[in-house]
Amino acid sequence: VPPIFNGEKEGKDGNATVPKKDIPYGEVLKEIEGLIETEKDLIANASNVSSAVYNAIIKYRGARGCNWVGFYFSRKCGEEVILVLGPFMGKPACRRIRFSEGVCGKAARTKEVQLVKDVHDFPGHIACDSASNSEVVIPLLSEKGEVLGVFDLDCPVLEGYSEEDASFLESVARMLVEGSDWS
Amino acid sequence: VPPIFNGEKEGKDGNATVPKKDIPYGEVLKEIEGLIETEKDLIANASNVSSAVYNAIIKYRGARGCNWVGFYFSRKCGEEVILVLGPFMGKPACRRIRFSEGVCGKAARTKEVQLVKDVHDFPGHIACDSASNSEVVIPLLSEKGEVLGVFDLDCPVLEGYSEEDASFLESVARMLVEGSDWS
Repeated sequence: VPPIFNGEKEGKDGNATVPKKDIPYGEVLKEIEGLIETEKDLIANASNVSSAVYNAIIKYRGARGCNWVGFYFSRKCGEEVILVLGPFMGKPACRRIRFSEGVCGKAARTKEVQLVKDVHDFPGHIACDSASNSEVVIPLLSEKGEVLGVFDLDCPVLEGYSEEDASFLESVARMLVEGSDWS
Repeated sequence: VPPIFNGEKEGKDGNATVPKKDIPYGEVLKEIEGLIETEKDLIANASNVSSAVYNAIIKYRGARGCNWVGFYFSRKCGEEVILVLGPFMGKPACRRIRFSEGVCGKAARTKEVQLVKDVHDFPGHIACDSASNSEVVIPLLSEKGEVLGVFDLDCPVLEGYSEEDASFLESVARMLVEGSDWS
């Protein structure tokens, strides 16, 4: 069985380092631009963006580079706005997350990028996949500053994502927001 | 780099056989039932179903068992109804497919399961991923018999899917159709 969506756990602590082969961010952004240009459908675009980002990370960093990439979208649920699972690559995931919960909820609540070196140190972390050890979550913000959802990546190793990764992912999120129909 | 979404190509013909370790269909159906119960959101459910089916095939048959699993949904595009990409696991995919095109289009047009042993023999086959050699497509039909979309699986080896697989995937498709809000 290949190590798909499991990372390649070494030892029991998930504390192996990610190979330092840098992702060519510019190339991947160009690829994503091509995938979403002339397409406005949000689900088609979010699906292809998850796939392109997941496959790029795995290609340059190996299976330990990422075990989950995907989206949650803001939805009204009674009086409350919550995050509902969207397209992703990885193992089956939590379907609904409140703005008060976990790393995704904090990104949605604060409208700020959450770069978490060790999810076990994050109060109220929601463990969808026990293989995850670090995480980055990018809020998806409309022109008016509304939270449309979040873009979430999990890594099976500690400190899996850098500030540079977060900037790249913010560019990806912006392309998806601007290139898709959110109505 | 692990063989993710590439299959494990042996030689150049993609003609390796899939290990004959049977998928425990009943167990996987139970898992899927749990994933979608109490959730009506179509995108959340279709995403988790793609993931559960993909991960089950890879677990029991290895990376050669499947290189793409996902959904296309029927959408009005002017006067025409077409298939638009939904949630999936795999490499980035074609965004729109006409009912007149390829294996997915034929499943939508005829409302019948398409089990294709060799996609290269299928007239008008759309090659989204060059790794694909065989395919099965299940139409998603409403109670009234309308085509809501299709459930599409690609395999990197020839004759990757059996009649039994197709029956299992029809059960999965029925669970998704009945358990989700399509309005």
